[in-house]
Amino acid sequence: MAEYKAFQVELADKIAHVQINRPEKINAMNVDFWSEIIEIFRWIDETDEVRVVVLSGAGKHFSSGIDLMMLAQVANDLGKDVGRNADVLRRKILQLQASFNAVDQCRKPVLAAIQGYCLGGAIDLVSACDMRYCTEDAQFSIKEIDMGMAADVGTLQRLPRIIGDGMMRELAFTGRTIDGHEAREIGLVNRTYADQSALLDGVMQLAGQIAEKSPVAIRGTKEMIRYMRDHRVDDGLEYIATWNAAMLQSADLRVAMAAHMSKQKPEFAD
Amino acid sequence: MAEYKAFQVELADKIAHVQINRPEKINAMNVDFWSEIIEIFRWIDETDEVRVVVLSGAGKHFSSGIDLMMLAQVANDLGKDVGRNADVLRRKILQLQASFNAVDQCRKPVLAAIQGYCLGGAIDLVSACDMRYCTEDAQFSIKEIDMGMAADVGTLQRLPRIIGDGMMRELAFTGRTIDGHEAREIGLVNRTYADQSALLDGVMQLAGQIAEKSPVAIRGTKEMIRYMRDHRVDDGLEYIATWNAAMLQSADLRVAMAAHMSKQKPEFAD
Amino acid sequence: MAEYKAFQVELADKIAHVQINRPEKINAMNVDFWSEIIEIFRWIDETDEVRVVVLSGAGKHFSSGIDLMMLAQVANDLGKDVGRNADVLRRKILQLQASFNAVDQCRKPVLAAIQGYCLGGAIDLVSACDMRYCTEDAQFSIKEIDMGMAADVGTLQRLPRIIGDGMMRELAFTGRTIDGHEAREIGLVNRTYADQSALLDGVMQLAGQIAEKSPVAIRGTKEMIRYMRDHRVDDGLEYIATWNAAMLQSADLRVAMAAHMSKQKPEFAD
Amino acid sequence: MAEYKAFQVELADKIAHVQINRPEKINAMNVDFWSEIIEIFRWIDETDEVRVVVLSGAGKHFSSGIDLMMLAQVANDLGKDVGRNADVLRRKILQLQASFNAVDQCRKPVLAAIQGYCLGGAIDLVSACDMRYCTEDAQFSIKEIDMGMAADVGTLQRLPRIIGDGMMRELAFTGRTIDGHEAREIGLVNRTYADQSALLDGVMQLAGQIAEKSPVAIRGTKEMIRYMRDHRVDDGLEYIATWNAAMLQSADLRVAMAAHMSKQKPEFAD
Amino acid sequence: MAEYKAFQVELADKIAHVQINRPEKINAMNVDFWSEIIEIFRWIDETDEVRVVVLSGAGKHFSSGIDLMMLAQVANDLGKDVGRNADVLRRKILQLQASFNAVDQCRKPVLAAIQGYCLGGAIDLVSACDMRYCTEDAQFSIKEIDMGMAADVGTLQRLPRIIGDGMMRELAFTGRTIDGHEAREIGLVNRTYADQSALLDGVMQLAGQIAEKSPVAIRGTKEMIRYMRDHRVDDGLEYIATWNAAMLQSADLRVAMAAHMSKQKPEFAD
Amino acid sequence: MAEYKAFQVELADKIAHVQINRPEKINAMNVDFWSEIIEIFRWIDETDEVRVVVLSGAGKHFSSGIDLMMLAQVANDLGKDVGRNADVLRRKILQLQASFNAVDQCRKPVLAAIQGYCLGGAIDLVSACDMRYCTEDAQFSIKEIDMGMAADVGTLQRLPRIIGDGMMRELAFTGRTIDGHEAREIGLVNRTYADQSALLDGVMQLAGQIAEKSPVAIRGTKEMIRYMRDHRVDDGLEYIATWNAAMLQSADLRVAMAAHMSKQKPEFAD
Repeated sequence: MAEYKAFQVELADKIAHVQINRPEKINAMNVDFWSEIIEIFRWIDETDEVRVVVLSGAGKHFSSGIDLMMLAQVANDLGKDVGRNADVLRRKILQLQASFNAVDQCRKPVLAAIQGYCLGGAIDLVSACDMRYCTEDAQFSIKEIDMGMAADVGTLQRLPRIIGDGMMRELAFTGRTIDGHEAREIGLVNRTYADQSALLDGVMQLAGQIAEKSPVAIRGTKEMIRYMRDHRVDDGLEYIATWNAAMLQSADLRVAMAAHMSKQKPEFAD
Repeated sequence: MAEYKAFQVELADKIAHVQINRPEKINAMNVDFWSEIIEIFRWIDETDEVRVVVLSGAGKHFSSGIDLMMLAQVANDLGKDVGRNADVLRRKILQLQASFNAVDQCRKPVLAAIQGYCLGGAIDLVSACDMRYCTEDAQFSIKEIDMGMAADVGTLQRLPRIIGDGMMRELAFTGRTIDGHEAREIGLVNRTYADQSALLDGVMQLAGQIAEKSPVAIRGTKEMIRYMRDHRVDDGLEYIATWNAAMLQSADLRVAMAAHMSKQKPEFAD
Repeated sequence: MAEYKAFQVELADKIAHVQINRPEKINAMNVDFWSEIIEIFRWIDETDEVRVVVLSGAGKHFSSGIDLMMLAQVANDLGKDVGRNADVLRRKILQLQASFNAVDQCRKPVLAAIQGYCLGGAIDLVSACDMRYCTEDAQFSIKEIDMGMAADVGTLQRLPRIIGDGMMRELAFTGRTIDGHEAREIGLVNRTYADQSALLDGVMQLAGQIAEKSPVAIRGTKEMIRYMRDHRVDDGLEYIATWNAAMLQSADLRVAMAAHMSKQKPEFAD
Repeated sequence: MAEYKAFQVELADKIAHVQINRPEKINAMNVDFWSEIIEIFRWIDETDEVRVVVLSGAGKHFSSGIDLMMLAQVANDLGKDVGRNADVLRRKILQLQASFNAVDQCRKPVLAAIQGYCLGGAIDLVSACDMRYCTEDAQFSIKEIDMGMAADVGTLQRLPRIIGDGMMRELAFTGRTIDGHEAREIGLVNRTYADQSALLDGVMQLAGQIAEKSPVAIRGTKEMIRYMRDHRVDDGLEYIATWNAAMLQSADLRVAMAAHMSKQKPEFAD
Repeated sequence: MAEYKAFQVELADKIAHVQINRPEKINAMNVDFWSEIIEIFRWIDETDEVRVVVLSGAGKHFSSGIDLMMLAQVANDLGKDVGRNADVLRRKILQLQASFNAVDQCRKPVLAAIQGYCLGGAIDLVSACDMRYCTEDAQFSIKEIDMGMAADVGTLQRLPRIIGDGMMRELAFTGRTIDGHEAREIGLVNRTYADQSALLDGVMQLAGQIAEKSPVAIRGTKEMIRYMRDHRVDDGLEYIATWNAAMLQSADLRVAMAAHMSKQKPEFAD
Repeated sequence: MAEYKAFQVELADKIAHVQINRPEKINAMNVDFWSEIIEIFRWIDETDEVRVVVLSGAGKHFSSGIDLMMLAQVANDLGKDVGRNADVLRRKILQLQASFNAVDQCRKPVLAAIQGYCLGGAIDLVSACDMRYCTEDAQFSIKEIDMGMAADVGTLQRLPRIIGDGMMRELAFTGRTIDGHEAREIGLVNRTYADQSALLDGVMQLAGQIAEKSPVAIRGTKEMIRYMRDHRVDDGLEYIATWNAAMLQSADLRVAMAAHMSKQKPEFAD
């Protein structure tokens, strides 16, 4: 396993635990963060042994969002021509988005475990995960509005599909902080836990259950749900039919069927 | 009314009651089921007297999903060439999907009344209905994941629009069983009832209310909501304008208006 | 500020308060209403001083929906040829839709404050607002179904994105009345208040918070959420990158950053 | 092979020759035509031996379009209520469209061989074919405009993708007749032939070439081009990747490769 | 008929002749032009007597495109904040686009008759017309590239559907001038004429033919082709079915049918 | 400039000349080719000095398409499980597609200069270029069909937009070879040249003209045409308005305007 500056990554029992590891900076997302996350998820995608991912933050808080120093640096690099600046900024934003697209498009499920602050860019990040879980005292805020800007690395694009249109707008316009309880009520997280230790235990247990399923089935399921976020029902039906035309010829069905008959737990190859 | 092997169908008070009728097999979906459901919904579509449909399962359970014998048979029919097998499987899946598309595209509202097990293919089926109601002790599980496959007859396509993206993924990845209470909380069903008898009474009463409305208005309303699942708001507005350009010339408006003025209950033609 | 027949409009503290003002007619939407609302929202769009809008109804009720006299008039104006009538009706419906599109596409957030009746066309209207708040005893009903018609000025198009597909169909097919409590539970409103006075206070306070944010940031945020209702995640990401390519060159970021550093409240230009 | 009233169907050398066979009625499309064409193309789809289809018209003309008697009958069946009539008409049109969708969605390529008249509904039909060939003196006209109606079984939907937007509108608005030469110039047909005999020879030869290719490869190619008519480039790329994930495991690649090495003609299984 | 500053408008034989009338300025598009064209096309849309439109330019040239004075004025009106300037520019461009959208969305066919220069904004304009005809010595150039900008009022959006993707890019990147002959070859115009007088005669004759058709049929045909530029084939088929559900109940079918039987010319009501 | 194994790359007069450089292998696309092309186009994208690209093939032929050795290698790497093989193949195809997406999405125009063979994968490649030019004796063939497979790196996705649907299908089903003359007639190339030397001269001259234009304007123009291949006209209009909101604040407009006034040639910054 490679070493990273902004993350600590561990692999055990087919679960990759990806931890943002700058607790002294409230896990603010610096230059290392944005490039390493791409490398890490490429490794996850290519490593058959990894079947599921848990994403968490070291220390008291999940993350305070983008590092303001980094933002200031981008501003400093601009020149005099508005048009050429726009070109530079547009490419910079697309590049940052690519970091979270790597999470969204990862072929394995990604579970976010959130405690303490989850602010600004951190919401963009967890919106790109498959599922979200948090402590009761977690604090969520779409902080970008208070920086004088519209959030541009994914929150406004992915969150409406998760929490619905009405409350989405209130949170985005006001930057209001919500706690774990309200987050669960509006569907932002699936479940809350009493504290950080219970949170990690709970999420790891859930990840363990997913790791036991057929990886062929999990991959197809994730691809289909991701696809449906953006496509029509009829296109989705045609896509799964084409997908399963190959995948139903996999051995995993026979393995599952046999286990079902013999009331045993199936063992699937990576 | 025709006789069916896998269903019992009754028509009374403009309500068609379609009941899966293989209680000794936990209403597992066999070959008869998949072909008869198309015939039944074609008949419903063409019979003006039917204004609304209730779909239920005979016995203690709604349905345990696809008949595993049938699945095994499909596997047996495959040949040696992977490409030609893929072609056969793809068409088979599209054919099974067509059975539930018949429910989804039916011009009359379809209300599902669910007790006991509602597993695997049964969730694909109720996702294609307009509304879902259940007993408190109903048990829902996206069981396909435990068969080593991604669900391919509609759950992954239609359910995200009903329960949202976050919990959808958890249920699809884990196959976790949820009861009626949680089903209502996440929006999978609209209401729970104490037991099967209260459930059928409640759903029939609701169906009765819908049966009294103008069938022209109900049809347009269903078409528009179905359309919006897959289209843009501006396209939807243009579509209803074109639709109502004809339908507002129907007598039903005058009937409704007159009844409204005279404080009487309107009677609409089939 | 212009005078209106169907509305009273006030501007204070950067908040435009648009009040439907025909309480003696339960704020029924007459000919004046449909044309004036376009003028008012054009003025709001072009007036930099307005940063946020509160939409309410004078008197005991928000609105009883479209004026039935107006509907009857449309019917009276029809001729003998079904095809030419269809053309007239289609254009009439598109014209009415344009009135609520003006609300939907307004560049400033619109908050609806709802008490008493919110029936038929009134639901079409509030579905076009950004957020909805109501009193506990508010009464919502998709009344069109009882007029023998499918709703055609926006409810069927916009509401499914707000409250989800399942309960949407029940409300649209039955016209069932729901109160403020249930409205909040299904996500139709974001919050309920004890009475009309508390409602207006609460909504004005929320509007005040939004008015203090950067108008450049608010505008971009609204545009992006509106865009995502109808577009793919990847298109949305590309759109915000192009949008922010210009907007991040605005002074508002520096203002916000400076205020953040000095722990002061930022003051943004209109 | 079944017998048909409106068609004569032959199968030889893996080519199905489907001939409209009512020359005494200029091959006008009557009730038999519309239902039999669905049966024929279902048979084609399910018969592995058929690898390609040639569609032609017996006698001096390809077809004069829809049978006016049939159109008159539809009008006669209408009742008094405009709304219910609209419902009947809408379903009738969708049903007629389904006949040509069967051609469009057929898994084997369909080549149209056109001589003499190709009017109204006949253009809708050939627009649903894969390729079109004609005699130099063929006569094409979008005749529906002269019947006081907008063409509604496919011409306006499929032809713009084939001949471009500009000339499309002229032909549809004026109903102007064009000959084989102009048809080729604007891309409506791929090639013209001196007379009907040369036409059939030429098209049969082309069909013969296609029949020799791998049916797995032909099917995938047709599906992809059909898909691209309505989808984005990125979706199309993802779709072919998923499709070929199975199909590249077919034996046909090895057969083709071996034939290529040994400079022999490959023989593919049906 | 109203008087206009930038146009001369005449109505005769159901044909509205709209002529850009600033020959001394090579029909450059000034402030009057952009606002009057909206008024004119609103009048056309609402005037039943107008069945078809011919759009031409007075004098030796069709038009040299946008008035450079007007462009300079927009630049002068900008302030200091890049973000707020962007907002102003974006709305200005959308406003200019609306002028040509009025042509594109007009319910009656619009035929452009082009002689001499057709440069920059003039190509944006004719791309929004239904059909284009020109003299042999007409000169077309996507001139915006030489003004240091990407064309933003419609050329880049509408022209690719008319002339195809390959030559489109060459013309847009180089601004190369093409004559009438090449314009016809690539499908930009449908036909060329020897000189301006022959051009106007020819286009008026074509317009006359269209004016004799059923206006109900013409309207439906235009709407369908416009719709197909942006929608899927299956959506288009459903749309025409819904549209014709009303329109086939028009008297125009009976009028056309009767005329067809009696071999007489049909007379359709406006 | 870096050295490449499969390419020779030169930069002069702001034109990057990218030449496939394996003439002894008919420029067959081997492993080096597929990875180096991504590096080269990343360099082009990031190098402001490059304003336009010419893509050609060294020797007598442009390219014979994918290297068959490489294809055989992929087959050899497959395992026993059909499902896992499908997963491997799907990712491999997506990876190959990414190589040509790099050409398609390059921010600078790419002109292909084609002589001799342009077979199979070579057509996929030139379909991803902006414009195509060839010698009269060039030979194009969608060769994949003869390898027993549907083309899967872009031909079936991009070419229909360039040559239209009708001839597209004939070429894809038959693999028929067409020469430069026919290629021009159907719009596959924009122009033919007598021989390879005239071809390169001509294309370089065209590239030179493009290199003199404002790079800001060229970039916006390419982005808009690329966008329109997959999007609606109304979305395209909104996108260019948002794009130009920033770009019209560039100095290039002023430079162009000043040059226009003084009748001099403008000089734009990179």
